[in-house]
Amino acid sequence: MSKLRVGMIGGGGPDSFFGMVHNRAIALDASRELVAGALRSNPESAMRAADDYGIEGYPTYQALLEAVQNGEQALDYVTIVTPNFAHYEPAKAFLQAGIPVLCEKPITMTVAEAENLAQIVEREQVPFVLAHTYTGHPMMMLAKEMIHSGEIGQVRKVVSWYNQGWLATALEQTGQQQASWRTDPARTGISNCGGDIGTHALIAATWVTGLAVERVSARLNTFVEGRVLDDDFNVIGELENGGTALITATQIAVGYRNDNGFRVFGTKGSIEWHQERAECLLVRYGDGRDITYWLGAEFDLPASVASYLRVPSGHHEDFFPALANLHTTIERLIRARRGEQDVPAAFPHPSVEEGVAGMKFVTAAVESSNNSGAWTQV
Amino acid sequence: MSKLRVGMIGGGGPDSFFGMVHNRAIALDASRELVAGALRSNPESAMRAADDYGIEGYPTYQALLEAVQNGEQALDYVTIVTPNFAHYEPAKAFLQAGIPVLCEKPITMTVAEAENLAQIVEREQVPFVLAHTYTGHPMMMLAKEMIHSGEIGQVRKVVSWYNQGWLATALEQTGQQQASWRTDPARTGISNCGGDIGTHALIAATWVTGLAVERVSARLNTFVEGRVLDDDFNVIGELENGGTALITATQIAVGYRNDNGFRVFGTKGSIEWHQERAECLLVRYGDGRDITYWLGAEFDLPASVASYLRVPSGHHEDFFPALANLHTTIERLIRARRGEQDVPAAFPHPSVEEGVAGMKFVTAAVESSNNSGAWTQV
Amino acid sequence: MSKLRVGMIGGGGPDSFFGMVHNRAIALDASRELVAGALRSNPESAMRAADDYGIEGYPTYQALLEAVQNGEQALDYVTIVTPNFAHYEPAKAFLQAGIPVLCEKPITMTVAEAENLAQIVEREQVPFVLAHTYTGHPMMMLAKEMIHSGEIGQVRKVVSWYNQGWLATALEQTGQQQASWRTDPARTGISNCGGDIGTHALIAATWVTGLAVERVSARLNTFVEGRVLDDDFNVIGELENGGTALITATQIAVGYRNDNGFRVFGTKGSIEWHQERAECLLVRYGDGRDITYWLGAEFDLPASVASYLRVPSGHHEDFFPALANLHTTIERLIRARRGEQDVPAAFPHPSVEEGVAGMKFVTAAVESSNNSGAWTQV
Amino acid sequence: MSKLRVGMIGGGGPDSFFGMVHNRAIALDASRELVAGALRSNPESAMRAADDYGIEGYPTYQALLEAVQNGEQALDYVTIVTPNFAHYEPAKAFLQAGIPVLCEKPITMTVAEAENLAQIVEREQVPFVLAHTYTGHPMMMLAKEMIHSGEIGQVRKVVSWYNQGWLATALEQTGQQQASWRTDPARTGISNCGGDIGTHALIAATWVTGLAVERVSARLNTFVEGRVLDDDFNVIGELENGGTALITATQIAVGYRNDNGFRVFGTKGSIEWHQERAECLLVRYGDGRDITYWLGAEFDLPASVASYLRVPSGHHEDFFPALANLHTTIERLIRARRGEQDVPAAFPHPSVEEGVAGMKFVTAAVESSNNSGAWTQV
Repeated sequence: MSKLRVGMIGGGGPDSFFGMVHNRAIALDASRELVAGALRSNPESAMRAADDYGIEGYPTYQALLEAVQNGEQALDYVTIVTPNFAHYEPAKAFLQAGIPVLCEKPITMTVAEAENLAQIVEREQVPFVLAHTYTGHPMMMLAKEMIHSGEIGQVRKVVSWYNQGWLATALEQTGQQQASWRTDPARTGISNCGGDIGTHALIAATWVTGLAVERVSARLNTFVEGRVLDDDFNVIGELENGGTALITATQIAVGYRNDNGFRVFGTKGSIEWHQERAECLLVRYGDGRDITYWLGAEFDLPASVASYLRVPSGHHEDFFPALANLHTTIERLIRARRGEQDVPAAFPHPSVEEGVAGMKFVTAAVESSNNSGAWTQV
Repeated sequence: MSKLRVGMIGGGGPDSFFGMVHNRAIALDASRELVAGALRSNPESAMRAADDYGIEGYPTYQALLEAVQNGEQALDYVTIVTPNFAHYEPAKAFLQAGIPVLCEKPITMTVAEAENLAQIVEREQVPFVLAHTYTGHPMMMLAKEMIHSGEIGQVRKVVSWYNQGWLATALEQTGQQQASWRTDPARTGISNCGGDIGTHALIAATWVTGLAVERVSARLNTFVEGRVLDDDFNVIGELENGGTALITATQIAVGYRNDNGFRVFGTKGSIEWHQERAECLLVRYGDGRDITYWLGAEFDLPASVASYLRVPSGHHEDFFPALANLHTTIERLIRARRGEQDVPAAFPHPSVEEGVAGMKFVTAAVESSNNSGAWTQV
Repeated sequence: MSKLRVGMIGGGGPDSFFGMVHNRAIALDASRELVAGALRSNPESAMRAADDYGIEGYPTYQALLEAVQNGEQALDYVTIVTPNFAHYEPAKAFLQAGIPVLCEKPITMTVAEAENLAQIVEREQVPFVLAHTYTGHPMMMLAKEMIHSGEIGQVRKVVSWYNQGWLATALEQTGQQQASWRTDPARTGISNCGGDIGTHALIAATWVTGLAVERVSARLNTFVEGRVLDDDFNVIGELENGGTALITATQIAVGYRNDNGFRVFGTKGSIEWHQERAECLLVRYGDGRDITYWLGAEFDLPASVASYLRVPSGHHEDFFPALANLHTTIERLIRARRGEQDVPAAFPHPSVEEGVAGMKFVTAAVESSNNSGAWTQV
Repeated sequence: MSKLRVGMIGGGGPDSFFGMVHNRAIALDASRELVAGALRSNPESAMRAADDYGIEGYPTYQALLEAVQNGEQALDYVTIVTPNFAHYEPAKAFLQAGIPVLCEKPITMTVAEAENLAQIVEREQVPFVLAHTYTGHPMMMLAKEMIHSGEIGQVRKVVSWYNQGWLATALEQTGQQQASWRTDPARTGISNCGGDIGTHALIAATWVTGLAVERVSARLNTFVEGRVLDDDFNVIGELENGGTALITATQIAVGYRNDNGFRVFGTKGSIEWHQERAECLLVRYGDGRDITYWLGAEFDLPASVASYLRVPSGHHEDFFPALANLHTTIERLIRARRGEQDVPAAFPHPSVEEGVAGMKFVTAAVESSNNSGAWTQV
C-alpha cells in the first residue's frame, strides 16, 4: 500500500498552533506523509516555513496547485489550515482541479461561499472532509452510531456546549496572534465565538443526532471592552423532528480550557460526552445503572468505529489520534475511489453539508441576536 | 437552651416523600422537635397520619392554629409541606398570627399571593424561610459568600440547570401521586417543570450571585403526550448588572436524577457546583490549577458557613443536613428575636423576596414562551 | 409502633465528636429516641453533659444500669461511645443484664475481652451491633449482597484501604483530645492506626466478601517523632479461600480525609467502592462497559438493602443515615425478638464475631510486624 | 535541523502491539523518522514486516548492525521492541558499537545482563533510555520535579499500583501471542506480572521520588490454573530514607485496563496521579483545598517539563505523546552529544540504572515470596 502524499496550505507561522497539529496527525499513521506546502501568505516566509517542516515549499497555494497540475508534484490531497478568511479560495481551486481537501472549520466566511464549495464537491465528486477534530474521537463516533441505531429512542433534546476562558481578557490587545485574527471581523467573519467554537457545539448537536437545526433564537454577548464581535454565544434551536437544541459557547469562562460536550435526551435513554474526558461515553437508561463505555475493543464496538482504533483500551488515544482519524477518513475515501482493496469504510465525518449548515446556523444566530432573539430560519 | 416546638402542615400522605424528610431534618439537631401537625387535607386521614408520626394531630391547619392561639398548643414555628396550591392559605394564616413559617417552594400559585405573604412578613416582622433545600448545602453557601466577597470579580454569566428524568414517560397516568399533582394545573399552577425545578435553577443563578434576573426569553416544551404543562424549561435571562443567565430545567432527561448545579463566570475566576457532588466546590482562576474546596472545617471557611457544620471533613453531610440547615436558620432567627444569647448569625437563606422573584420569573417565562420567546420583563 | 428508648454511655465531652453523631443518627428515624445517658467518666461532668443533651443524666454507667434494673428507667438498648479502653466494662454489664448494645469499634482492648463479650451475647441471645458506620452505607451493603450472590464469581483478591492525614503531625502534643487518647497505649490499646482505621479496612475486606483473614504478614510504622504506637499500618493477608487481602491504613497521608474503600476482584467481575463517594458502586465485568450503581430504588435493589433507604435516588443519604442504619438494624433485631409484626429483616451488620476477628487481626498484625513481617496466624 | 534516523529491532509481528506504537511515537515529531528494521526473529517474516512498514528491512539485527557499521545504513539510534528475552543481545551489540538505544522494559532477563548493559553504557558513554512509557506523561514528570524541589517535604510513604484484568482467564491457552510469551518463563523470565507491570509500579515509586527500594517483603500469587508464573504481585518495601513503599500489580482484576498510578505522602503534602487520567495531577496540602494541576502551559510549569508539550491545555496529549517524549529524550541526548545548538535539556527519564534496579527488585521479590515473605535485600 503506497503512502498518500499530502500538501498543506497555511499552518506555517510561529503562532500557527494547528499546522503542526495536522502534521503530527498526518504522521501518526504510516500510510501517508506530508510532502509539500504553501505554508504562509508571505511567499518568502512560506518557503522558510517549508524548510522548517522539512518539506517541499511553494510561495503560494497557486504555485503548489500549478506544480501538481504540471505533474511536478504528486499530491493525493491537501489540508487547509489558514485563518477563516483564507479557506475558500484554495479550497475552491483544489476541488475544481479534482484534488481532495481536508479543510479547517468554519468552512468559509459566508453561506454563499460554502454553498459554492458544496456544488463543486457535488459536481466533481471529490472527497472533502471538514476538520471538526472532535468528531474524530471514537466515543463521539460511537454516540452517533448508537443514536442512529435507535439505542436511546427518539431524540427530544440536545444540550451542547463549549466553555473556554482564554478570551476573558483583551488578549488581542497584547499582540497574541490567535486572539488577533479571531476577534477581527475582516479575518474571522461575522462571529468570533459562534464561528470558532459555537460551530463545535452545533456539530455536537446535529452531526451526533443526525438532526438539523431549523430555527434559532439567539443571544450573543460581547463582554470584553473594545471587542467588536461576540465572545459569548447562546442559542435555543428547533430540531427538524420538533425537538429542542440548546447550543452555547463562551470564551469568557475563566479557567475553562476546552470544555466541549453534549447531552442527548431520547425517549429511551440519554447519552453524555465530554471532550476533556474523551475516552469514555456515559449512557443512561433510567434504571439506576449508569453505563460508562470505555475506548477500546473489548466490548462489541461497531466495526465502523473499531476500525479506527490504534491501541487496546486503557491507553487513551486522545487529541492527535482524533484529528488523525479525520485524515484516515479522507484517506479511505481516496483509496476507495481508486478501487484499492480492503479499504475499511470511511466514517461519515463532517463534509460540505455540515460546512454549509454551520455557516447558515451562525448567520441565523447573529441575525436573531441583532433582532432581539426573534426566531429565525436557518 | 429549650427545644423549639415545631408544627407541620401537610406532609402526611403515603406518597408524601417530603413530610418525613422535614421530620428527619428537624430531628437531626437536638435543639428542636416536631410536636404537632395537620398532616393531610382529609381530617380523618390527618389524625391517623399524626398517630403514625407520633405527634399531636389536628384535623385542619385552622384547628392547629386555633389551638396555638388558645394556648392549648405551644409552637415556635410551622413548616408547610403541602402541594403548591395549598401553601398560601396556611402560610398567610400563621404569619398573620405572628408565627414563623418555613414553607416549601414554590412559595405560592401566583405572584399576587407571594406579594401578599411578603407584605405580611414585612408588616409583622416574622421569620420566614423558603425551603430551597439545596441552599442549605454548605458549599452552596460558600459559593454565595465567595462571590459576595469579590473572589471571582464581576459576574458576567451564570449557567444553572436541573436535569431530571422521572417524568420522561406519562407517569401521572399510572396513578403515581407526585406525578399526578405536579402535572395538574389546578394543583401545581401555570408551570410544572419551571415551577418545581426551574425555580431551583433560578435560585442557583440569583441567590448565589446576589443578582436579579430582569428580563427573560423562554422556550417551554411539553414532550410527553397528554400532558398540559411544561416538562422542559429553557430561559435566557438578563441579569441586573447586564450579565446573562442561562437557566434550564428538564424532567425528560432519562436516567438523570437530581442533576442540579451552576457555573458562575466572573471577570477574575469561575465557580462550579453540582448538587450530586454537594460536598465540594470547584474554583478556577485561569492559572491551570483548579481548586476543589471540600466540606469541612480545615480551611479558613467563613464563620457564617462554618457555624452550620456538624462533622469534620471527609464525612459528607448531604441531603438531610442541608434541609436541617434551613431549619437551623429559622431557629436562629427565632432565638435571636427572643434575645437568646450566643445564637450564631443566621445565613441569609431564601425568604419571601426570593419567593416573589421566583413566581415572577416563572410567570414571565410562561408568558415569553407563549409569545414566541419575546423578551419579557420579570 | 412505640418508640425505642435509647441510652448512651460516653460521648459527652466537648471533644466527643461521636456522641452527637450517634444522637443525630438515633433521631433521624422517628422510631426511637435518646432518653438517658452516662455521658462522661467524671460524674459531675456526666450530669452536666446530659443536661446539654436534654436527656436524663446518670453519674456512671453503673447507676444507669441500676436504674434500668430497678425499673426507674426504661431502656430498649444502649449505645457505647467511650474511648476504646472503656468499651468492655459497660458492654459486659449491659449485655449480662440482657440489654442490647450498639458499641463503637474497636470492640475492646484485647482479644480475651472480645471473646468474653461474644460468649455473653451467645449465652444471653441479646442483640449486639458493632458500630462500623460505613457498613451502614447501602452501597456497601449492596456490595456484600452481590458478592454473596455470586455476581462476581469466586473472590481472588481484596484490596482495602483507609487513608487519613490528620495525624501527619504530632497533633497529640497540642492538647487535641481525640489525638491524645488515640495515640495513648493506655487508652487505645496496642495499635493506634490499625485499631482505629485498620479495622475499617479489615471490615471492608472481610465483611463485604464473607471471607476471614487467616494469616497475616504486616509492617507497622511510626512516622511522627515522639509517638509510641503505629500511625501507618500495612498488612498482606491470606483469605480462608486461598485468596489474598491487601489491607492498609495510614494517618500520615497529608490532605486525605476519610479515604476508605475497597476493590474486590472475583473470577467473573470486580467491585469497587469509595467511602467519600458512598452513593455509588462500580461494577466491572471486563466487557468494556463499567456499571455505576447509584443509591436509590430505581433498579432492582435487593429488598434487604432497599428497606433501609429513606429518599429516592439523586439525593444522597450519606454519613448520618449510614450510622442510623446500624441503629435501624439493632432496632429491627429488638423488635423481631419481641414478636412485633411487619418488622423488615435486619441486615447482617457487624456484631461480636466481627469484633473478635478485628481484635485478633490487629493483635496478629502487631505481632507479625514486631517479628519482621513473619506470617502470623490470626 | 536534520531528522534523526531510527532503526527498530522487533515489533513486526501481527500481534506486536508495541512496534506500531513506537512507529507512531517516532513519527509524531517531525525531527526523526523510522528508516530501517529487523522486525521479526524469522528472517523472511522480518523482511515482509519491513515492507509492510515501508522501511528498509534486514533479516536479523546483526545484519542491520553490520549495515550500519559498513556505512550502508545510517542510523542515529535503535529502538528495541522484542519480547523480554530478546532485549539483551541486540542492546549489547548496538551499545558496544556506540549506537544509542531506546529499549523496552524490563531491560533484560537477569540482573547480570542488566549490569552488563550498564557497564557498557558507562564505558561507551552512549545514550540509553528505558521505555517506561508512563514516565513520558508530563504530569508524571511534574510530580518528580515537585518532589525533588521539596514541595511536599520529606517522603514518608509511597503507594503505587498497576491493576489489569486481561489475564484473569487462561488467555495464553487460546493462542493469544501476547499472553503466550508473557506467561512463558523461557521468554519472559522469572516473573510475569512483576516483570511486566510490577516494574511500572516500581518506577512510579522510585523514579518519581528519587528514592531506591532497599529491602522487600513480597507475596506473589498465581491465581489462574495451569500458569507457572505470578499473575499477582504484592510487595512491601523499605525506601532508602527509611520510608515505606507499597508496590502492587495484578493481572486478574477483571475489567481493569491500565490502572497504574501512585500516591506519595510527604511531611508537607501529598501527590496523586492516575495513568488513566494522565492529564492531571492532584496535590494536597492538608488545608481542605485540593489542587488539580492540568496539563498545559498556563501555570508556571518548570521549563524541564514545559519543553516537552505540544499543545495548549485542554487538549490532552496522552499515550502516543508520552512515548514520543521518551524518543524526544534520547533525541536530545544525541543532539546534545553532537553539540547541536539550542537543544533543550533532556529530562532524566529512566535509563540503565533504573533497568538494573528493576531487575534486582523483581529478583528480590521472587526470592522473598519463595521464602515466605522474608525481608530480602534488593
